[in-house]
Amino acid sequence: GWVRSVRSQKEVLFLHINDGSSLESLQVVVDPGLEKRDLTFGSAVEVQGKLVRSPHRMQNMELQAETIHVVGPCDIWSFPLKMKERHPLEYIRQFPHLRCRNNTLGALLRIRSAATAGIHSFFQDSGYVHIHTPIITSNDCEGAGELFQIEVKAKESAEKTHFFNVPAFLTVSGQLHLEVMAGAFTHVFTFGPTFRAENSQSRRHLAEFYMVEAELSFTESLQDIMQVMEDLFKTVTSTVLSKCPHDVELFHKYIAPAQKVMHVTGKKLFSSSCRISYSEAVEILKQAPQTFTFKPEWGCDLQTEHEKYLVKHCGEVPVFVVNYPYDLKPFYMRDNEDGPQHTVAAVDLLVPGVGELCGGSLREERLPFLESRLQRLGLTDAYQW
Amino acid sequence: GWVRSVRSQKEVLFLHINDGSSLESLQVVVDPGLEKRDLTFGSAVEVQGKLVRSPHRMQNMELQAETIHVVGPCDIWSFPLKMKERHPLEYIRQFPHLRCRNNTLGALLRIRSAATAGIHSFFQDSGYVHIHTPIITSNDCEGAGELFQIEVKAKESAEKTHFFNVPAFLTVSGQLHLEVMAGAFTHVFTFGPTFRAENSQSRRHLAEFYMVEAELSFTESLQDIMQVMEDLFKTVTSTVLSKCPHDVELFHKYIAPAQKVMHVTGKKLFSSSCRISYSEAVEILKQAPQTFTFKPEWGCDLQTEHEKYLVKHCGEVPVFVVNYPYDLKPFYMRDNEDGPQHTVAAVDLLVPGVGELCGGSLREERLPFLESRLQRLGLTDAYQW
Repeated sequence: GWVRSVRSQKEVLFLHINDGSSLESLQVVVDPGLEKRDLTFGSAVEVQGKLVRSPHRMQNMELQAETIHVVGPCDIWSFPLKMKERHPLEYIRQFPHLRCRNNTLGALLRIRSAATAGIHSFFQDSGYVHIHTPIITSNDCEGAGELFQIEVKAKESAEKTHFFNVPAFLTVSGQLHLEVMAGAFTHVFTFGPTFRAENSQSRRHLAEFYMVEAELSFTESLQDIMQVMEDLFKTVTSTVLSKCPHDVELFHKYIAPAQKVMHVTGKKLFSSSCRISYSEAVEILKQAPQTFTFKPEWGCDLQTEHEKYLVKHCGEVPVFVVNYPYDLKPFYMRDNEDGPQHTVAAVDLLVPGVGELCGGSLREERLPFLESRLQRLGLTDAYQW
Repeated sequence: GWVRSVRSQKEVLFLHINDGSSLESLQVVVDPGLEKRDLTFGSAVEVQGKLVRSPHRMQNMELQAETIHVVGPCDIWSFPLKMKERHPLEYIRQFPHLRCRNNTLGALLRIRSAATAGIHSFFQDSGYVHIHTPIITSNDCEGAGELFQIEVKAKESAEKTHFFNVPAFLTVSGQLHLEVMAGAFTHVFTFGPTFRAENSQSRRHLAEFYMVEAELSFTESLQDIMQVMEDLFKTVTSTVLSKCPHDVELFHKYIAPAQKVMHVTGKKLFSSSCRISYSEAVEILKQAPQTFTFKPEWGCDLQTEHEKYLVKHCGEVPVFVVNYPYDLKPFYMRDNEDGPQHTVAAVDLLVPGVGELCGGSLREERLPFLESRLQRLGLTDAYQW
């Protein structure tokens, strides 16, 4: 592992060594006779010794060193990270090859890894077939965002002809490919990179980000979709909380102290979850004692400020909002065929501190409905195989 | 599920319905009174009834239908797939939205899904941290292949400035990013898409393909690396064989009958695996009774024909070849500092029917060795953060 701290006392030297498997370091007790000049903060070491129960309250185990070998020395004067210092994130951005040694980044990456494992386990255990939908594609899904176009590097020679004969882009969503697969496998999912050629300086997503998508055949109710979202959310939350409790604690302590509400077990998180319709949501917002930058009105998108208010209104629990206006949503969402306030069977999950976490819908399976809607939107020729 | 066959008898109608969860279909026994005009091959149906033990030898269970609902009818005259017909793969290529209903493609995608699950489980269970290495990158790793360059779609306005300020490409490997992460987490892996702007019409890889990569810190011997490769291979093989035995059987029967050798359990597969050095491999090839298109010679890359011969020579088992010539391998592989036949600590795994399946090496950790080699290759300025 890597030395995180060196503390010299009269009779003994204490090292804390971290191997990246958790936020906690292992305390190593060293006889001063074993001390070496290059046994410094930041160095990589191999220690052999006896693992014993620690007499101190702060840790269970410690290692009594018998041999120490410095595999990779570290010049502490030129090393940009300092012992026991909480470096600002903007500072460690300058050292991309070292920043994963920082506690915050390390915790983040372990949490991400645990969440990834939880996502894969959940779908595999639920009988879903995993599909790697293509990254390079010629369609832009629902016009979800700005596209990156790709060409071969040797531009001068290739200017006239496309590598794939047609213009090719980076995917913004695997949804359309996944829908096709759901026509043979009933339950399918994908979890891969997606791309938007947009400004990344927002809390929503980067130019390159990972997204979970799933499609279910033979589903006739939004209830079923909400159940999948809820189960996935619970599984991933409890996986992360059980695998990385200290890492989560670090974020509550230093990064987002106000978000402590998330630190309940995944199982409890949904016990009081709230399900409201879009129309109800607009009524709640209209009666809110606070003024919004965007005035809430039926037929308009819910803004982040609205989503946050709804979550607060329901008691800082996850909230499902269902049945959005027909005119707000893409062509493939199922028409509810309801009165003057025309809606589709769509659902969004809002969560504390984030706003919209995921969304879904029943797909329009009735060909005449699809055809007339595509025609109305002028998309009749936009989709082809 | 979807109707795969309709067989009408005097007193009873037999349906085979498949929901994509396995190659096997469920036999449904239908009273002719329930028959409908649109209950055809290819249609999507919902059947309710009683699951009973089947009197026939061919299946364990069958469903005695009580109600049948045709959710999605299918015009069998215009539907391009025909009942009980084995369509050539080139034919079904024309119908990308339907080809996953074909047995071969269905089996392939289930096997891929099972293999993906096996890969994730293996690494997570072995304490690896999963890293999503970037897809969009500004470096080209080891010059592993031709690059795709990306730009925002609106070319006319963006011609002068790059979206990311520098030219950006699709990754050919996450290795360099993963090596950095191994400097904090000891064991890391990634499993994501990689890209080569090369002709895809080969058995090796497509322009877009998924690749498993792992980096281990504190590793001092090729034995450790070979052990990881072997364990990964065994886990994935046994996962696939236990989850999709019928799908694997289909490939042995119709697609690659000669490859039956793979159809032993993953545990047995390596029991007699062979480990030879590159130099030994060249000697074996020189003494081979057959003539090769490429003459085997110390210092030259092993060609696919050579790899196949070596596997055959060792008894059609997986073969590890270690210690490749220094001049053949990239700068970051560890110099063995051996005699006139100068080698590096690299290893390739060759398997029956494929040739090279994976490769790895000890990384050169000694700075002076790295610096002099980079200088010799003229790469001193090629890598920067």
